[in-house]
Amino acid sequence: MSQMSPPIVRTVAELRARVMAWRAAGELVGLAPTMGALHEGHLSLIRLAKTHAHRAVASLFVNPTQFGPNEDFEAYPRSEARDAELLASVGCDLLYAPSVSEMYPQGFATTVSVRGVSEPLDGAARPGHFAGVATVVTKLLLRCGPDLAVFGEKDYQQLQVIRRLVRDLDIPVEILGAPTARAEDGLALSSRNAYLTADERSAAPELHRALAAAVEQLHAGRSAAAVEADAMDRLKAAGFSRVDYVEVRAVDDLARLGPGPVPGPARILGAAVLGKARLIDNLAV
Amino acid sequence: MSQMSPPIVRTVAELRARVMAWRAAGELVGLAPTMGALHEGHLSLIRLAKTHAHRAVASLFVNPTQFGPNEDFEAYPRSEARDAELLASVGCDLLYAPSVSEMYPQGFATTVSVRGVSEPLDGAARPGHFAGVATVVTKLLLRCGPDLAVFGEKDYQQLQVIRRLVRDLDIPVEILGAPTARAEDGLALSSRNAYLTADERSAAPELHRALAAAVEQLHAGRSAAAVEADAMDRLKAAGFSRVDYVEVRAVDDLARLGPGPVPGPARILGAAVLGKARLIDNLAV
Repeated sequence: MSQMSPPIVRTVAELRARVMAWRAAGELVGLAPTMGALHEGHLSLIRLAKTHAHRAVASLFVNPTQFGPNEDFEAYPRSEARDAELLASVGCDLLYAPSVSEMYPQGFATTVSVRGVSEPLDGAARPGHFAGVATVVTKLLLRCGPDLAVFGEKDYQQLQVIRRLVRDLDIPVEILGAPTARAEDGLALSSRNAYLTADERSAAPELHRALAAAVEQLHAGRSAAAVEADAMDRLKAAGFSRVDYVEVRAVDDLARLGPGPVPGPARILGAAVLGKARLIDNLAV
Repeated sequence: MSQMSPPIVRTVAELRARVMAWRAAGELVGLAPTMGALHEGHLSLIRLAKTHAHRAVASLFVNPTQFGPNEDFEAYPRSEARDAELLASVGCDLLYAPSVSEMYPQGFATTVSVRGVSEPLDGAARPGHFAGVATVVTKLLLRCGPDLAVFGEKDYQQLQVIRRLVRDLDIPVEILGAPTARAEDGLALSSRNAYLTADERSAAPELHRALAAAVEQLHAGRSAAAVEADAMDRLKAAGFSRVDYVEVRAVDDLARLGPGPVPGPARILGAAVLGKARLIDNLAV
């Protein structure tokens, strides 16, 4: 009995009116920020929000400030009508889909930046990316005012950057991480998988396989440096044209660990380019 | 019938509990952030807050991140007990006085920065100052969650930076500017006036007089460049050891105006060093 679409609002005033009415009625509100082009991974965020809150709000905003000048902002897939239907199917109560000028009016001049955790890995490969993410997430959280917000572990570094800024700026919201949704062959679901040709799609799960093999080797006591080098070789052999990184890092602040065997809980993260898609993935160690 | 001191809280949890109880009872809450060493100017902020809100909260925090390495963080005057008494005398309902480690716990890594309005004038003279201000004000607003917050026009550039970041980050609060409180001889009240010797105190009002004379000359159609140069000469002649700037700027974003006659509403701002005190002041044009 799902409706075709949740209500869609495009202004802060409408968003706040809805959320404040729910909160005034004693209902908890969860927010799942997305860039649209929704897949099962996004839907799992809404489901998680609904298990912790009475109401789930999704935002849909392809944020230009987190794309580099040579990245895929223009090409990024957009499918709002279909996204709205998918959201309805998992019980999403409201879709907030602002325009770029609603998000960044004339004169906009403020940036939220996070030292440390945002600097290595995707921070090094994509200069300015995490400042764009941190700024827009701050805005989305303060516009919506939810009790909790859900982000996918697929973007693990992003999740840690957001946890840091929420704590540091005292934003009164609880951040939940959702497990990465995967295809049957292990490929992490991503809107950017749509860029892959059939051949590239066959090769793509090698990113997950290489990380999973690395985790096994680390558990067997092999050094991080050797395991990282093996995984990078494996990706190049599978046809990835560029490997930005495969690195074992501390779980919270993503600090570099020593080159030897990993002493405790850690995270292995990889990013590599296949055809027109830059894929990322990560696993717990 | 004033009490000796308003309740003093030092943690976010206590602060939020008090403010949320007021708001739940339908009361409006105003915040006046201060660095303590209170004078009549600060008290006018509390009075203004009380005319617009049922409850006034003052914060007292000497924020280390807005002081440069060679500035007066250590020497900045501190007088919490006296400050609390003064706050009680104007009906302040709560004093929030966190420690540095409560404000910036281990691992703190986030900065709020504002382009444009924070770059000239004190932004150029005090590198990093406005990022420190923007970050701590964001935190104070999000910790307290007031309906409105009051800042003095004496720190005019700071007020404009705060207006910008509140709009840009969608912080749900109204910002009020309070007119500069002055001594009878025109000197803008400032905690740093305490650094002045008796002779310096006699010379200090020359900053206000030079700006006031500049405003008259601008109204008479004299060029901004000529008026600024005259004011700077006047300050040097009065014994100021360094003049950081005297400049006519746009009212909102503090953009540079042309060198000729000022076409419409503007602001003239000055900063100069006298003895151990760096004094600032500004007037509407």
